[in-house]
Amino acid sequence: MTSSPLAAPSIPPVAVATAGADMFATAVAAQALPVERVDWRPPMDGTVEDIAVVAADPIRKTANDLALSRMLDVQALLVGVAPASEVLGLEPGQFLHAGPPIAWDRASGPLRGALMGAAAFEGLVEDPEDAAALFAAGTEVSLEPCHHRSAVGPMAGVVSPSMWMFVLEDPASGKRTYCSLNEGLGKVLRYGAYGPDVLTRLRWMRDVLGPLLGEAVAATVADHGPIDATAILGQMLQMGDEAHNRNRAGTLMLLRDLAPALVRSSRSAAEVAEAFAFIGGNDHFFLNIAMPACKLMLDAGRDIPGSTMVVAMARNGTDFGIQVSGTGDQWFTGPAQLADGLFLGDYGPDDANPDIGDSAITETAGIGGFAMAAAPAIVRFVGGTVPDALATSRRMREITLGENNRWPIPVLDFAGAASGIDVTAVCRTGILPQINTGMAGKVAGVGQVGAGLVTPPASIFPAALAELAARTRARG
Amino acid sequence: MTSSPLAAPSIPPVAVATAGADMFATAVAAQALPVERVDWRPPMDGTVEDIAVVAADPIRKTANDLALSRMLDVQALLVGVAPASEVLGLEPGQFLHAGPPIAWDRASGPLRGALMGAAAFEGLVEDPEDAAALFAAGTEVSLEPCHHRSAVGPMAGVVSPSMWMFVLEDPASGKRTYCSLNEGLGKVLRYGAYGPDVLTRLRWMRDVLGPLLGEAVAATVADHGPIDATAILGQMLQMGDEAHNRNRAGTLMLLRDLAPALVRSSRSAAEVAEAFAFIGGNDHFFLNIAMPACKLMLDAGRDIPGSTMVVAMARNGTDFGIQVSGTGDQWFTGPAQLADGLFLGDYGPDDANPDIGDSAITETAGIGGFAMAAAPAIVRFVGGTVPDALATSRRMREITLGENNRWPIPVLDFAGAASGIDVTAVCRTGILPQINTGMAGKVAGVGQVGAGLVTPPASIFPAALAELAARTRARG
Repeated sequence: MTSSPLAAPSIPPVAVATAGADMFATAVAAQALPVERVDWRPPMDGTVEDIAVVAADPIRKTANDLALSRMLDVQALLVGVAPASEVLGLEPGQFLHAGPPIAWDRASGPLRGALMGAAAFEGLVEDPEDAAALFAAGTEVSLEPCHHRSAVGPMAGVVSPSMWMFVLEDPASGKRTYCSLNEGLGKVLRYGAYGPDVLTRLRWMRDVLGPLLGEAVAATVADHGPIDATAILGQMLQMGDEAHNRNRAGTLMLLRDLAPALVRSSRSAAEVAEAFAFIGGNDHFFLNIAMPACKLMLDAGRDIPGSTMVVAMARNGTDFGIQVSGTGDQWFTGPAQLADGLFLGDYGPDDANPDIGDSAITETAGIGGFAMAAAPAIVRFVGGTVPDALATSRRMREITLGENNRWPIPVLDFAGAASGIDVTAVCRTGILPQINTGMAGKVAGVGQVGAGLVTPPASIFPAALAELAARTRARG
Repeated sequence: MTSSPLAAPSIPPVAVATAGADMFATAVAAQALPVERVDWRPPMDGTVEDIAVVAADPIRKTANDLALSRMLDVQALLVGVAPASEVLGLEPGQFLHAGPPIAWDRASGPLRGALMGAAAFEGLVEDPEDAAALFAAGTEVSLEPCHHRSAVGPMAGVVSPSMWMFVLEDPASGKRTYCSLNEGLGKVLRYGAYGPDVLTRLRWMRDVLGPLLGEAVAATVADHGPIDATAILGQMLQMGDEAHNRNRAGTLMLLRDLAPALVRSSRSAAEVAEAFAFIGGNDHFFLNIAMPACKLMLDAGRDIPGSTMVVAMARNGTDFGIQVSGTGDQWFTGPAQLADGLFLGDYGPDDANPDIGDSAITETAGIGGFAMAAAPAIVRFVGGTVPDALATSRRMREITLGENNRWPIPVLDFAGAASGIDVTAVCRTGILPQINTGMAGKVAGVGQVGAGLVTPPASIFPAALAELAARTRARG
């Protein structure tokens, strides 16, 4: 909080910075003294004591520096594409989903719809409608968060054994993360749709697209080395993508990098041409690489005692959960919120399900809503104005630990993406992380109804802070 | 020139706007009155009388409205790729070049180098060095500007009969424009290089790339209709390209649109894969579609009596020339300037040739340097700062007739690209069009040495204005 001194030599160089209620600033201004009004809000309710404890924790700064640097050091490389049964060891009847743990009885419409479609896709039932009873009984099937298997899934995030997965690897640690292939927009499984067209597309992805991409990625890795998702993400931020709801440039760069190997694959020209048209027709295709790239970064920052850095934000359509470096695998959850945004066709707010998906891993890593300044055109998709988008990227700097120099944002004069959400800073400022998101219909089977802006429920940050404070106190 | 009135009720709402010398503003400010300093410069020397004549021309406004609307109504579609001999009727020994007309004796190093390479490519000489005598004699060869054949060429812009050309068409008028295929950066013919590698690449482009693209564009047109270059340019401005020195997104979108047809072509998988790698490895590939798309727009605005709109800006490496709607095919020329920018490797300002190429057709159409705000990352390639880039796009509004609503610039809150340079406005404000450009080595054979920012020589605008004024007076 600085303010430039007065220039006039005859007046003493008095300058005043004010925060909070405006009365004092007005009084100072009335005396013709320069005033700088600083945006300030009181800490979140009931957090003052915990903030003091955590702020005074002697290992906090070192822990956060380590968490942030481990995260920023990760280079996420696309090294393969393979079935979930193979790379995740998923067995028939096992299903992964987005967000924190949840059982069928509390699952939202889009999550139920996606599970029903996946059960039919796996041949557990003939008609997706019959799967509801299967999941309600819970004897032949099991649910588990993607995050518990080093994976992430957009929207409902349902992964079943026959789905093909992108495999990302950090060469320094050998650690890997995974994500399914993107189906496109509209009536698709991840938005809760499960009609015949959805299942037909999933089968084509299993039988043609997945194996073809597996072959092309393997050949590209053999000829030119792995595909550097971290570098592509850096380019995307110079090309109008924020890598959550705009992945157009990323998708095009992936297509460019794989094109020679796709052409040389063992598949027929007709199949290769169909794959080019499918990927080229889906601007969101790269999202499913951006997400595991971000998870790979954040997983490197996990499990550092004393660190207040958020390492996951994820939603299952009912609950919004976060995990924090210094508190291990514990989820802090609260009710998922409704997004504020733009709707497709005749859909409106009453049709939307609360926030859903692991895709907020992008914001957790400093892109998506945090990098809206890099993607001003996105306001036409998620709502808001261009000045809002620029202001949001600047505001997120107040709740993050640092910048990612691999991801400079040109219009912010090449400042790096604001990275490493700090639970303490969120509680102290009351500023919530900004998330860009798609909106699923709340009724199973509907699919996408819009896209918009949303935040986590505020309560989960004080809850995480309380646990951090308890651990700090326990350490002495 | 407006200024907000004072809010305090006890002081009369006096506000002062000042322009020109700062003394008056200082005096007003000393009396504690609000002053808005407006950036203002006197008209260009010797133009006051001509400005008055042209400004009072009763047909000027209607003529400029017509020129601008005709220009903005053009939809530029890529409809084919074919040899220059076929679509331009170029005969052996005929060469096109960038910029206004010029003969060998005044040609710059890079133009000479490109002509020598093209002569060897066409088989007129064995060794490019032997071509100098051929061009000096001038009996078996002839030179003509690209612009005189409905074509444009980047940098040296040399076109010879065996080169393959993009063919752009406006469906409303059936008019067509043409441009050769982009060779990439560095040691390439258009930058004046003519080594064996340059000639080998040109032969591959003639024998493989050109025919393959011709087949793929024809198949794409047949299956899906023509490729809409105007729409791709609109997308590029949302993806960090200004379509002169950044064409990365445009190149990727072209590749995406042609990919299925490339895969299904009659060429071998190896040749198709090589073409994918070549185009995907050259971020500037789309420039040679952006340029003829812009020329197609500007040609629609030509030959409207009374219109002061610039319809071409072009440089041959020696002279910078403009053509204006109201003055037909007349060129107004002055000395091409040296760009200010960034240099490759060990090259420096002493190595650079003055400004060269027809690529300033992009600025003439409102993109390139005029749309730098859409491409802030470009300052790392051409120099300058991000605030400069934003300010340039705003400043260009002062010398243009209107906005292109098909080309909104997100960070300027979706204002359309500033379009239609007005000779009168340039003379009245002294603001010169801003051009982003590549820099060729001044010695024939060197190739590219850098990229930077440049303007036309100021003198050509008063010269054009004088001719406009003469025609206005002649009309009565």
